[in-house]
Amino acid sequence: MSIAITLAPIEGGGITSAKGFTAAGVHAGFRRNKSRLDMALVVADEPCACAGTFTRNIFASAPVQVSRKNVAQGVAKCVVVNSGNANAATGDEGIKVAEETCRLAAEAFGCAPEQVLVSSTGVVGVQLDIAPFTTGIPAAQALLSRDGGSDAAHAIMTTDTYAKEQAVSYVSEAEGLAGTTITVGGCVKGSGMIMPNMATMIAVVTTDAPLAHDALQHALNAVVDESFNKVVVDGDTSPNDTCFLLASGAAAPDATIEEGTPAFEEFVSALDFVCQQLARMIAADGEGSTKLVTVNVRGAASDEDADTAARAVATSPLVKTAIFGHDCNWGRIAVKLGMSGASFKAEDCDIDIMGIPVCRGGMEVPFDENEALLKFQENEIVIDCDLGAGDCSCTIWTCDLTYDYVRINGEYRT
Amino acid sequence: MSIAITLAPIEGGGITSAKGFTAAGVHAGFRRNKSRLDMALVVADEPCACAGTFTRNIFASAPVQVSRKNVAQGVAKCVVVNSGNANAATGDEGIKVAEETCRLAAEAFGCAPEQVLVSSTGVVGVQLDIAPFTTGIPAAQALLSRDGGSDAAHAIMTTDTYAKEQAVSYVSEAEGLAGTTITVGGCVKGSGMIMPNMATMIAVVTTDAPLAHDALQHALNAVVDESFNKVVVDGDTSPNDTCFLLASGAAAPDATIEEGTPAFEEFVSALDFVCQQLARMIAADGEGSTKLVTVNVRGAASDEDADTAARAVATSPLVKTAIFGHDCNWGRIAVKLGMSGASFKAEDCDIDIMGIPVCRGGMEVPFDENEALLKFQENEIVIDCDLGAGDCSCTIWTCDLTYDYVRINGEYRT
Repeated sequence: MSIAITLAPIEGGGITSAKGFTAAGVHAGFRRNKSRLDMALVVADEPCACAGTFTRNIFASAPVQVSRKNVAQGVAKCVVVNSGNANAATGDEGIKVAEETCRLAAEAFGCAPEQVLVSSTGVVGVQLDIAPFTTGIPAAQALLSRDGGSDAAHAIMTTDTYAKEQAVSYVSEAEGLAGTTITVGGCVKGSGMIMPNMATMIAVVTTDAPLAHDALQHALNAVVDESFNKVVVDGDTSPNDTCFLLASGAAAPDATIEEGTPAFEEFVSALDFVCQQLARMIAADGEGSTKLVTVNVRGAASDEDADTAARAVATSPLVKTAIFGHDCNWGRIAVKLGMSGASFKAEDCDIDIMGIPVCRGGMEVPFDENEALLKFQENEIVIDCDLGAGDCSCTIWTCDLTYDYVRINGEYRT
Repeated sequence: MSIAITLAPIEGGGITSAKGFTAAGVHAGFRRNKSRLDMALVVADEPCACAGTFTRNIFASAPVQVSRKNVAQGVAKCVVVNSGNANAATGDEGIKVAEETCRLAAEAFGCAPEQVLVSSTGVVGVQLDIAPFTTGIPAAQALLSRDGGSDAAHAIMTTDTYAKEQAVSYVSEAEGLAGTTITVGGCVKGSGMIMPNMATMIAVVTTDAPLAHDALQHALNAVVDESFNKVVVDGDTSPNDTCFLLASGAAAPDATIEEGTPAFEEFVSALDFVCQQLARMIAADGEGSTKLVTVNVRGAASDEDADTAARAVATSPLVKTAIFGHDCNWGRIAVKLGMSGASFKAEDCDIDIMGIPVCRGGMEVPFDENEALLKFQENEIVIDCDLGAGDCSCTIWTCDLTYDYVRINGEYRT
């Protein structure tokens, strides 16, 4: 099945680019600093199909536990996200607060509590106060608009240094949808898993494509595996990692995109673009980072080997400090590949850094250090590894490891 | 089988504490800096039983490949270790140099080349010059003595900030050996896997206990798994990691310690003590570290789960920077346990930091921050985690993650 659509990124687009959604961001009071937005609301004009993926951490937060159940119902009216407190390691009391948040939003928007999705990010192990929601939800409701996406993106930030938004549209060429413009957009936060002051990954994506819950969930599962699940900042998975996807169907109210059709492929490619761009932004904004690092492994014997090998390189403090130091150090990369568990032979291994061949057949290739230093001034460092053991490949995004990472994470909490 | 011997650490002891061995360290010329020793020689009075364990990295260095074969013969006369060049990623040419080193030492000591064990540490991907061995081996031979252990320990150092030596003796109470004093001693280098300027782990241990090759190898395998294999500095495994063990039998020339006997248990406990002390020294001297960190996991459902969980905590940059920042941050520890893959329930998890209960049943226990800050001034930080899922346990040693780690590894190679 080949698709020929053109993906058109939307300048300044985000969570409200798709038809059928409004959003707002307010200071509800979860943070002491009153100039910081700390609660986001994303609302569908009508209850619509939803999907979600969640952390697999055993210490899953209360909102993750509640939203996991609600997403399974398949229909959502709104998403409420707070920053400043993660509502994690808070026991039964935390669950009650998450459920009460759903009830408050349900009352405000005239829907069932199960149609509210919640997510929290911030300090761990401290009970989340319900009070800011009681005033914050009505306040945000009053501000809801098609222009509120950026405020919502700002309200979910923790240690992020900038808001992360992306949207794209395409004109369908698929039977029954031909000529229809479909939009996918979203926002994300995350730049490392800090606790307390945790910087969970939370993504909210909307679309006006017409899909039912199951198809939407399958599309999201496939895309998350190739985007957010390929980002590594420090190897930690937060108890709050969450990605929500809502589909209003407003682009084609009378149609339904079914799995296994060209229309589904088109949609997945657009969703993939948005999630990959958001994933790259997370890596680029990794705590203390100066560079986005893209690790491509090809020639692996299996998909699992490709992922294992690329992830080993991307999580190596030695590789990440070398990049911070502008050191074109292929040896550290080779050693991580060699210990990753991926099966290959040293004499079949080739490595390029920023397009410069530095290792061929497991041995050093002389290269121009000045040319390498020049290339290290780029904002994105690309490492290509060929294991020479098969046809499988994988890309992982990460960032360099810097003094600022140590400073940010080594500071006293007090 | 219970043993009741007392292990007596030997003040200033090391590789030549056991009877039957001499050692020396010289500047042979692998390094430019003439004031630095760069070649160590450890020689058995007579060819004796040997054992070895080696890196599993696919990029195994030339000396690892040669020594792996030689150790399998079961008998060794001497060990030659150079620093300054790792002879790794050097192809067939590198193998020839390692083999030629064996021949040179064999000539000098009147033994077979297969009775020489070699190991190298230093820069990767550069051919190792044989010339320094041709003059260095005779020079070291002339200096061999029972007092040469410290020089040998210094000669194998790379980024280590101090030489790492340990020896212990015990009086056997086992049948056939009762009253015999047996000694185990050794030295090690290693403080992170840096390439180039690689800081491989290389350990050389000697004993005057009488064991044949197979028993020696089995003792070493068991002990290495609980000592050197439980050290994590930055999660990297060098292509040169090597541990040699030589047994002269000089403590009881007419006896043989067989596996499965009380005498074997006694020996393993002494070997274990030496290797664990050396392993702790590696962790404490981790690159840029200010503290030794000991992570104990108990209550795991399996040994593998215990190792996985402890290793997850010990490799977490977030945990390691928190310790550097004297931050009693149990949340970061909990999250690593929760994502490690070990099976347990959040509500069964307890965590203590420096003996302070900080988490019970997966939730925060209020604790005195001032008391915690005071405890963080210790040189060793101990983290105890109980998963409440079984009876298995594991200890992993690591160090904190500091600005200096980034500086050491982020510097330009030039």
